[in-house]
Amino acid sequence: MDDTIRLARAYLSRVAEPPAPALTTLIELVGPIRAAAMVRHGDVNTAVAAETDARRDHHHAATDLSYASKVGARLVCPEDAEWPADHLAALTLAQAEGLAWAAPPIALWVRGDRPLAESLGAAAGIVGARAATAYGDHVASDFAYSLAKAGTTVVSGAAFGIDAAAHRGALAGEGLTVAVLPCGIDVTYPAAHDSLLRHIAAKGLLVTEYPPGTHPAKFRFLVRNRLAAAFSAATVVVEAGVRGGSRHTAAVARVLDRPVLAVPGPVTSATSRGCHDLLREHRADLVTSADEILQVLKDQPRPAGQIAGRAGGDAVCVFLALTPHREMSAAELATACDLPQPRVRAALADLELTRSVTRGDTGWRRV
Amino acid sequence: MDDTIRLARAYLSRVAEPPAPALTTLIELVGPIRAAAMVRHGDVNTAVAAETDARRDHHHAATDLSYASKVGARLVCPEDAEWPADHLAALTLAQAEGLAWAAPPIALWVRGDRPLAESLGAAAGIVGARAATAYGDHVASDFAYSLAKAGTTVVSGAAFGIDAAAHRGALAGEGLTVAVLPCGIDVTYPAAHDSLLRHIAAKGLLVTEYPPGTHPAKFRFLVRNRLAAAFSAATVVVEAGVRGGSRHTAAVARVLDRPVLAVPGPVTSATSRGCHDLLREHRADLVTSADEILQVLKDQPRPAGQIAGRAGGDAVCVFLALTPHREMSAAELATACDLPQPRVRAALADLELTRSVTRGDTGWRRV
Repeated sequence: MDDTIRLARAYLSRVAEPPAPALTTLIELVGPIRAAAMVRHGDVNTAVAAETDARRDHHHAATDLSYASKVGARLVCPEDAEWPADHLAALTLAQAEGLAWAAPPIALWVRGDRPLAESLGAAAGIVGARAATAYGDHVASDFAYSLAKAGTTVVSGAAFGIDAAAHRGALAGEGLTVAVLPCGIDVTYPAAHDSLLRHIAAKGLLVTEYPPGTHPAKFRFLVRNRLAAAFSAATVVVEAGVRGGSRHTAAVARVLDRPVLAVPGPVTSATSRGCHDLLREHRADLVTSADEILQVLKDQPRPAGQIAGRAGGDAVCVFLALTPHREMSAAELATACDLPQPRVRAALADLELTRSVTRGDTGWRRV
Repeated sequence: MDDTIRLARAYLSRVAEPPAPALTTLIELVGPIRAAAMVRHGDVNTAVAAETDARRDHHHAATDLSYASKVGARLVCPEDAEWPADHLAALTLAQAEGLAWAAPPIALWVRGDRPLAESLGAAAGIVGARAATAYGDHVASDFAYSLAKAGTTVVSGAAFGIDAAAHRGALAGEGLTVAVLPCGIDVTYPAAHDSLLRHIAAKGLLVTEYPPGTHPAKFRFLVRNRLAAAFSAATVVVEAGVRGGSRHTAAVARVLDRPVLAVPGPVTSATSRGCHDLLREHRADLVTSADEILQVLKDQPRPAGQIAGRAGGDAVCVFLALTPHREMSAAELATACDLPQPRVRAALADLELTRSVTRGDTGWRRV
């Protein structure tokens, strides 16, 4: 691949805070080299300008690429064979449907020897609470171990608790595991996971859309979640509090029409409450073993990421029925989408968590 | 009420092993006094004869009534004001739809001072494994305590494990609890529950359709389950193994179109497996607190037992679409009933557990 493309993508990767729907669209239309030149000269429409004005003078492409290579990382671009196009197609389609937050990454910083797309395959995402219990840690690591043994890649976020248990289980099972980071490829976050991150990079992959040196921030966790959901053919939530990132990842996965599975636990455990809410609201299916996860991956109507026609299921139908101008009730939406109200309510909950819709006094509207 | 009616019902209660659909229908048609005379003289059709021939010479009505009164019990008849007609209407309707096992009881032996129908009200059934864990015992007793405090009657079966924990919780909450027995009102079963049964009789009610002296037997547990399900406006399964009576009670409740709720637990616990199966197969809704149970009871579209038109939901539709003569596949049934296949499969599972249908090489047929 032409180095000028990679340099252009490296520049564009730093110039806008992801997700950058307008910039993504511009690149799609004119290609990365011309898009980079236009941004550099401020020769862009208002939407792209809003995304790029603050950083358009940050010309660190060559430095970033050389710095990445020093920590054993590379910049994977859509023009590369290892680009996970099938996995990310759901994001492109969701963006096309109007879900701006779903805009796909401009490029991916990757650390680890294996090719990205092939390593992902039909991966299982395992996410959950940072403040996991011994039960949650055990289940996450046990499931990940068995998935790894069965040749299924485990995707997670390298955080404390369930994430770490999942990565460790997959490593113990001598399988592939991919950590999607909310920070630069060179940033050790959390710091206490220095050795775990190195281990993942040695045996699997670290992936991020953030340029080197980017520090984690709360909003970046949410943005990162869309990549974790897109990389996973199914997402498993193992322990989750009532508020917490895992519920957001689950919502994103559902909006992308990927199966969401939740592991039940004791009703006396606050860290299982998020899973029980997902199950009660029929926003996740119950799962109790790695074999059941493998069955779900096998039962997928299409190979991972190979999407025909449109992204999303109920959520996208409901989103498309809404406008930013008039509020609609769940009952109205049920009629408009020809869906039962419980499914409309589940879809609205997912769309609200992904900040695609907002609730007013008389109903819902697009954000 | 006329004593001759009670004597006739006492005789009929002993003459046939419940459920006795043909005898129940005869009584409905000609009344208990005439039905008793006909049975006594063998002046009945083949179906009634098959149910009554073995015991039609057992004339213990007066003895049974006097014996019952000695242990503080009475025979409650459909002609009595305290007869739970609304609760049992679902059984009558299910029988009318062709589900012979659902035939309502001929009379009920009751121990305890309170009037039966009023005591039941919109009761919550709590059932589960005999070999419960400390977790299951805790949850059953905690839920029952809170339900009792909220004025909701707790129905269970007085068995070891979850049943006992539920009764004890309700008693601790100073509420009403009703034990539906698989044996005579005078039989202390299980023997170790002597004191618990006395406590329930003192503060709540013991109920059975079996005449005094009847010993428990495996098939009587299954027959008893239909009464427990009918008495409960919703049934909660707290811990259940893969095979076990609780799943049968849940199936009966679903066939009667009563809500079934299941409590999740650790996936590492074999005694939660039955609950997880019910949840995974969408044959129960997830519940994690007594408040959620109270909400389900409140959300019921009709007052407990007050049924308009027909018993059952999906299960009865599916049952009616089948014949004993030709097997039908789940796909055929989905078309015939205009239901999605997962709901047809859930209904078939319930009907199979209640022995209403059987699976052959090419599909399903009525038993």
